[in-house]
This record gives sequence, structure tokens and C-alpha cells, in this order.
Amino acid sequence: MSLPRFHCTPLDPQPGTTAILTDAEARHARQILRLRPGDRAELFDGAGIEVIAEVVGPQGQTLVLRVLEARTAATELPIRIVIAPAVLKGDAMDALVRDVAMLGAHAIAPVITARTVLPARAGHAAGVVERWGRIALASAKQCGRSVLPAIEPARPLADVLADPAWGHATRLILCEPAAGAPGATASPGMGDDVVVLSGPEGGWAPEELDAALAHGWRPWTCSPMTMRAETAPVVAMGIIGWARRR
Amino acid sequence: MSLPRFHCTPLDPQPGTTAILTDAEARHARQILRLRPGDRAELFDGAGIEVIAEVVGPQGQTLVLRVLEARTAATELPIRIVIAPAVLKGDAMDALVRDVAMLGAHAIAPVITARTVLPARAGHAAGVVERWGRIALASAKQCGRSVLPAIEPARPLADVLADPAWGHATRLILCEPAAGAPGATASPGMGDDVVVLSGPEGGWAPEELDAALAHGWRPWTCSPMTMRAETAPVVAMGIIGWARRR
Repeated sequence: MSLPRFHCTPLDPQPGTTAILTDAEARHARQILRLRPGDRAELFDGAGIEVIAEVVGPQGQTLVLRVLEARTAATELPIRIVIAPAVLKGDAMDALVRDVAMLGAHAIAPVITARTVLPARAGHAAGVVERWGRIALASAKQCGRSVLPAIEPARPLADVLADPAWGHATRLILCEPAAGAPGATASPGMGDDVVVLSGPEGGWAPEELDAALAHGWRPWTCSPMTMRAETAPVVAMGIIGWARRR
Repeated sequence: MSLPRFHCTPLDPQPGTTAILTDAEARHARQILRLRPGDRAELFDGAGIEVIAEVVGPQGQTLVLRVLEARTAATELPIRIVIAPAVLKGDAMDALVRDVAMLGAHAIAPVITARTVLPARAGHAAGVVERWGRIALASAKQCGRSVLPAIEPARPLADVLADPAWGHATRLILCEPAAGAPGATASPGMGDDVVVLSGPEGGWAPEELDAALAHGWRPWTCSPMTMRAETAPVVAMGIIGWARRR
């Protein structure tokens, strides 16, 4: 039997210290799983700390636990991969966030592109970022990951292409086989920081691809097959993780 | 504008020959897309033939078209990959079938395992195979693939492990990082025929993994991350396709 797993921050891994679940995590532990004093749970802080803890009891709306021992957190990828996906329609975007969080994304930095079909709620950026955060958290809980990817608000493609924070990274733009991008590379040839830009359902507009190349992004067709927009970055992450395995 | 795309069999690619859409494809073309005489469509037979055709008109419940020209079918993988997934719950299995069909699976051969949670309808094997076939077809139509994977009825794991038809193939069993399977290989090292066995939501039972190894299957952990059951074979296909790209 695996222990129930909760996100808890801050979290001190020292045995005997107190850990406090709040908000949705406290409600889940108290009302859905009905944890009682003495029950055990796995706690993680989303930044790599993971412990086994024992329930002490409820306190207000929170649930208080005592840390029993630190655990060795599950393995992370040996490189940092930022996924910069065109914002997709609701379900597809949810699946994308869930799967790249599961596969070890360091951050998710959504992009507004020419062919992005914006969901109605995309006007409320804060709510959307929170929603994607909840999905990433649920994915981490389910898959035993103890690190949460940072989720950034969506930005226009032009800002992303020129982002100076990624100047040192291997910057890849995923292209469909049919795109036949000039100079399309067959190998990602990565360093320790990789940014993967992936397109919307309708693909890149030609001028977007041109702009990316002009900014030094490298086109990458990671499969001879045409992939759905929410699957392409997932497959790309799998390949990069495999190519850079230890 | 891309043309609407239909599955049509038999299909003779010779210009001037007649092609007839039947059943769901005819209904889709006539009632949903309301194709009229003179409208054009893309037809594919699921075995690699693809043509552009022009609507002649309805005939009974069918729709008659005339082939205008053969098209070069979209690229297939240079190897044959059979995906043998443990049967998953409804939505997860649908996503798996959709995505491995998209990524170029040669066949999908579902497996009943110790921890397989059988959906209620799994008792009606014929209906389930038809359903998976429809999903694979929809995926091929959407992604422009002109070959349909064969879909086999689910079989018990013991039959699959000992299947003599796969004696010559590279036979891989996907394992979670935590499984620490004895002799777990870091490289798939494939020939031109690969079978990938992937487990259910609850993972392999230890005796199942032992039996697979005893039958000569090779354990493969294709990511350091723990993946959802429906995603693991998709990532595995992406990696194999990448490793064997031309």
C-alpha cells in the first residue's frame, strides 16, 4: 500500500518538526481521505523535499502532522527542460500540462500564437495559471514527483522568441514533418538547459517560423508522423530525457 | 484549406476509377459535411494508398467518387512497432489507442494482466475491438496517416508472452523506474520488428515481470520519471521512432 501524498510548504525534513497542510490539501486529507491521528502520509514541498509524516490532528481548517523521516525524493531529469506550448483548448491544454509535469518539466511557459484559439477563460490570466498549477500538482502527486514545475502566465510569441533569460539555452521549435523548415535539424544536440516551443492545433504561421529562426531557435521535427498539438511536446520531452539519460 | 479525408476500401489509385464510401464514412460525408457533386476529398485505404477524388453523387446509402490522382502517402516509421498494452479504463485506453495510432503503430494487441481493471464492456470483445478500431481510424484521419494499425482482441498475458509470431522481434516490457527490474537495459537496441508490452495503472505484478523475463522479454525503463499507464507506450514509441529515424 502506498501512502497518501500531499503538497506541503514550507517543509522542514528534520524528524520531529511540525508540518501543516492548508487549503485544498487539508480539505482533501480531512474530508475525502478522513485521516486520523496516527495515520501516515507522504509530504513533498514541490522543490525536492519529501518526508514521511504522522497525523497529529486538525487545528482550525488545517491538519497538523509530525515529520518522521526524510525520504529520498524520486529521480528528476539530469537537465532542465522548459516547455513553451501554444495555449490549446481546455482539455488539450490540461492534458499537456499534466503530461509534461509528469515527465519532469522544469517550467511551463505558455505562448499566444497567431493560430492560438483562446479559451474564454484565458482573459483571466491569474485564474488560468492557478488552474494549470493545480493540474501540475495533481500530476506530481499521482506520479510521485517531488518537484513542481513553475507555471508562467501566457505571453505573446514575440516576447518568448526574444526572451533574454533563455539566451544560453538550447532553444528548439517543434515543427511538423510537412513544414520542411529550412535547416531542420535531425538532432536536438542539447546542453543542460533546453526550451521546447510547441505549436497550436493549426500549426505555426510561416512568418512565426521565420521569426523563430531569425532569433536563433532551431527547428526540430521529432517524429516523421504528424502529432496532435498536446502530444508533440510530450513526445519531445520523452526523447530529450532519453537522449540525455544517465 | 485541407480536403476532408475518408477511409475507403477497396481503393484503386488509377485515375478515373470509381471509389465508394459506405457506412459511417458515407454518412459523415453526406450528412455532416454535405459533400456535393464536384466537391473534392482525400481517400485512403488504411494500407498505404491515398488519392484525391471528386464526388459523383449519392447511390443508395453510399457516396460515389471518381479518383482524380494518386497522392504520395504520408511517411510511415521505417520499422514495425506492435504496442501490446494492458487494457486500461475507458478514457485512458481510448487516449492510448488514439496516440499510438497517430505515432505509427503497426498493430495494437491489448493484454489482460493481473492488475487490469476490466471495463464493464470488455466482456463484449467484438464491440471493444470495433470501438478501438474507430478511434484508430479517427486518429489516422486527423493526423493524415494513410495506414491503419491492426487491432487485435485482448488476450491473457501468458498467451502474449509466449506468442511464437513475435519470436524474431525485439520484445520489450516497459517497467517503472521503481521496479528496478533485474538486468534492466538502458537501450532498446532494436531490429526492424519491435513489440512493446506496457502495464496497467497498478503496474506489473512481480510474477508477471519474472514470467516475461523468463520468456526472453527485455525490461525497458524509458524514462527516469514514473509515467501514467496510457502515456508510457506513447513516449516509448516516440523514443523508438527517434532512435531509428532515417
